[in-house]
Amino acid sequence: MSSNDRVIIFDTTLRDGEQSPGASMTKDEKLRIAKALERLRVDVIEAGFAIASPGDFEAVKLIADSIKDSTVCSLSRAVDADIERAAEALRGANSGRIHTFIATSPIHMQYKLRMQPDQVVEQAVKAVKKARSLCGDVEFSCEDAGRSEIDFLCRIIEAAIDAGARTINIPDTVGYAIPHQYADTIRQLLERIPNADKAVFSVHCHNDLGLAVANSLAAVVAGARQVECTINGLGERAGNAALEEIVMAIKTRGDLLNVHTRIETEHILSASRLVSGITGFPVQPNKAIVGANAFAHESGIHQDGVLKHRETYEIMSAQSVGWNTNKMVMGKHSGRAAFRSRLEELGIALAGEAELNAAFARFKELADKKHEIFDEDLQALVSDTQGEEVPEHFKLVTLEVASKTGEVPEAKLVLSVAGQEVKADANGSGPVDATFKAIESVAHSEASLQLYSVNAITQGTDSQGEVTVRLEKGGRIVNGNGADTDILVASAKAYINALNLMQAGTPKAHPQVADV
Amino acid sequence: MSSNDRVIIFDTTLRDGEQSPGASMTKDEKLRIAKALERLRVDVIEAGFAIASPGDFEAVKLIADSIKDSTVCSLSRAVDADIERAAEALRGANSGRIHTFIATSPIHMQYKLRMQPDQVVEQAVKAVKKARSLCGDVEFSCEDAGRSEIDFLCRIIEAAIDAGARTINIPDTVGYAIPHQYADTIRQLLERIPNADKAVFSVHCHNDLGLAVANSLAAVVAGARQVECTINGLGERAGNAALEEIVMAIKTRGDLLNVHTRIETEHILSASRLVSGITGFPVQPNKAIVGANAFAHESGIHQDGVLKHRETYEIMSAQSVGWNTNKMVMGKHSGRAAFRSRLEELGIALAGEAELNAAFARFKELADKKHEIFDEDLQALVSDTQGEEVPEHFKLVTLEVASKTGEVPEAKLVLSVAGQEVKADANGSGPVDATFKAIESVAHSEASLQLYSVNAITQGTDSQGEVTVRLEKGGRIVNGNGADTDILVASAKAYINALNLMQAGTPKAHPQVADV
Repeated sequence: MSSNDRVIIFDTTLRDGEQSPGASMTKDEKLRIAKALERLRVDVIEAGFAIASPGDFEAVKLIADSIKDSTVCSLSRAVDADIERAAEALRGANSGRIHTFIATSPIHMQYKLRMQPDQVVEQAVKAVKKARSLCGDVEFSCEDAGRSEIDFLCRIIEAAIDAGARTINIPDTVGYAIPHQYADTIRQLLERIPNADKAVFSVHCHNDLGLAVANSLAAVVAGARQVECTINGLGERAGNAALEEIVMAIKTRGDLLNVHTRIETEHILSASRLVSGITGFPVQPNKAIVGANAFAHESGIHQDGVLKHRETYEIMSAQSVGWNTNKMVMGKHSGRAAFRSRLEELGIALAGEAELNAAFARFKELADKKHEIFDEDLQALVSDTQGEEVPEHFKLVTLEVASKTGEVPEAKLVLSVAGQEVKADANGSGPVDATFKAIESVAHSEASLQLYSVNAITQGTDSQGEVTVRLEKGGRIVNGNGADTDILVASAKAYINALNLMQAGTPKAHPQVADV
Repeated sequence: MSSNDRVIIFDTTLRDGEQSPGASMTKDEKLRIAKALERLRVDVIEAGFAIASPGDFEAVKLIADSIKDSTVCSLSRAVDADIERAAEALRGANSGRIHTFIATSPIHMQYKLRMQPDQVVEQAVKAVKKARSLCGDVEFSCEDAGRSEIDFLCRIIEAAIDAGARTINIPDTVGYAIPHQYADTIRQLLERIPNADKAVFSVHCHNDLGLAVANSLAAVVAGARQVECTINGLGERAGNAALEEIVMAIKTRGDLLNVHTRIETEHILSASRLVSGITGFPVQPNKAIVGANAFAHESGIHQDGVLKHRETYEIMSAQSVGWNTNKMVMGKHSGRAAFRSRLEELGIALAGEAELNAAFARFKELADKKHEIFDEDLQALVSDTQGEEVPEHFKLVTLEVASKTGEVPEAKLVLSVAGQEVKADANGSGPVDATFKAIESVAHSEASLQLYSVNAITQGTDSQGEVTVRLEKGGRIVNGNGADTDILVASAKAYINALNLMQAGTPKAHPQVADV
């Protein structure tokens, strides 16, 4: 490797990120995220695990067919059926990659695979060869590398490179590594494996101990040249290394790390908001780079310092990651052209005139209720009209709620169920409870409510509330979203959206997924 | 230092954490957090910055007078008035510490202090001597050490140790450090400063690049023996190193780090929830250790692995940080004794019988509306009755809201204003907006709403909603909280709580604060 090499940014928001409990996404939502990743100039987008379900296959295929600038990747276990399915999903890709994996730690080989080490090497080689026969770009991962024996890693990686793998990924599957030790492992592998120069070494770190970003960067210093990461650090348990932190650490400390990426950092914030909005996973205010407070200064001494000399406290500018100090505000007098051009500036692509007209009609409706329309309002509004792949079995027609202290709240509503209007009413411990019970008196979903949250989209009392409702039934989890200036209407919409997702009967997204 | 030394855990949730925009706490809230920190067995609690305001002074004094097991610390600039005020606040402490600081980087010395390096050394020595004349335990911090020249650091630290400082803190004020480089700085300081063995070296890292925990641990490996951190990583901008991550990394990887702490980790989760509840700062689901998903496994392969052998995917147990798999549930038939004993188990201390009776009355009221009462419900309920130091200038008497799709929502309410009942009504873009406008028609606060969020406290549609309202006026920010099974009542309570905090006229918490 030379100094100031480029680090390949491999985003797995759509695969490992989606494995977070409650973060399942629809095909259309995945495509919107993939487009945001392409706009960021992510090198490789891991779009899913093609064999996991028909839904996963369709999503990988849609993304492979739509994305032009980034390489699109599908995960597959080290078995023929997985690899063939991945290759099929990637057929339309401008640039495709098959990512195949097998566990290499004694504990996983013994308890999960129930295989001898020799058998594991043999299966890995067979899988890489199979993948290379279908796709020129093959990545091989040693699952649970962090707890694998170094001699065995050397052996299986050398064999995988010989078999044609061009990227070798060393994941810290359980988030157990410490930077200096992880870097040491990468350094040893690069030194000891005779054909190491024929592959790019990659890292994939989990954040269980809060060290995912540091472990990834330590590995880069040791010679790794691909980092697997996710927007907002989404991912199973405590998540993966956060793309925005990896990229900004490399950009800000290029002096020490001697590498760069090709990410266009000013699109980071909008990608973060898109992922947070779609998954319903909030970003905490004190999250690095993308948290609401990340660039906010409270203390008197600091404000003074900032005024005296901006550099005294700022190591990177808020603008460089997409925070705008002056937000464009629209109102009820804004026209269709201004609306369309603002959407374009926000990087929101609508499918056609019909979708634009629907969004504009909703914009006018909102502008009647709300004085100032911010960028976030536009994003929420478009989220609501986009991605209508879920059939609306249930639809809210009218809602009437009365709530008075000392009396039991009551909700009356009219739902459209498969086109037929049905009336319902119910009492509850609060107006939201009454609304949900009225809906359930019609729907009989028997799902349980796991999460209910509301966030105001912008500031001011007339802001829209964005409600997320998470329902669970028989192990299947869906997130419904709804936005409205009326919190009760937003709640009803979110609950109904969740019911429609359940109703749509998408098979459980992850009958078999992995963490590599 | 010897192998397997103890690392001193210095918590600054109440000082640096409180500097987060919007995280201001009342004196009583600070005491509750201090008690939770003592229960965790935190070694040093930085309780505030005594000279910053009368409120800060009172909070440091209250905590110094109440906490027995942990050392209580106050921050002070390197000037006599600050140091005297800190000593005064700490007078009642079992074990007190004065923490004094001055900036040592060229950029800060030139632009903020407008002092020559010689003058800075002189002032530091004078301050440490002054502090030692008032308190046996003195910590000295080099503000912006990360961008200071190593020769100058050696010089000023040697002088500070000679003057009597027993802890030397090397903060990465702007979150700019990278682990291997930060560790190298610590190593050099320990090697080059002749009297380094007479002080404990401490680190204080900010998370702007997502590296606060890694930088702290790298410094520990290099010889630092105190880590400054906060619950949930609270703190200015992207926050400080998270206490829970530091402690669990040290506990889980004692094999590599060769150190330990005396923290009782099973109280981590309740401390995290307490801080999140008081500040209104949510913890994102994918936050390490304390996020809702931190110990949740979604993927099929993983679940299988977990079932086959727990260790395949778990590096620490959920129980070890306070996650219970079986939550105690109370209901409407639970008696006063069971209620009291559950509160004790949850570590909630009520001031006396009157407070217990008030909390129990609210419990009975809640149990009438809500089927099952979880631990989180009890915590919310007690938060509501505790900490009544804020005079209730405004109080909600009744609220009546009608909302119907297609019509303008209307709220009618009766407020008690300084004991006098006042009626008000208003329309709004939604029922929450109408409620807030009705309150404002009486209160005329002219504050602006900066944040509105709702989280369901437990699962199920009859859960209580916990509403946070953040109001801003003339640069002053307050967070109001309210919980109720009726989201509109909870919203009204939260708004009124925020108004009462504003009304109470507590002076702005941080006219002068620092980041060290």
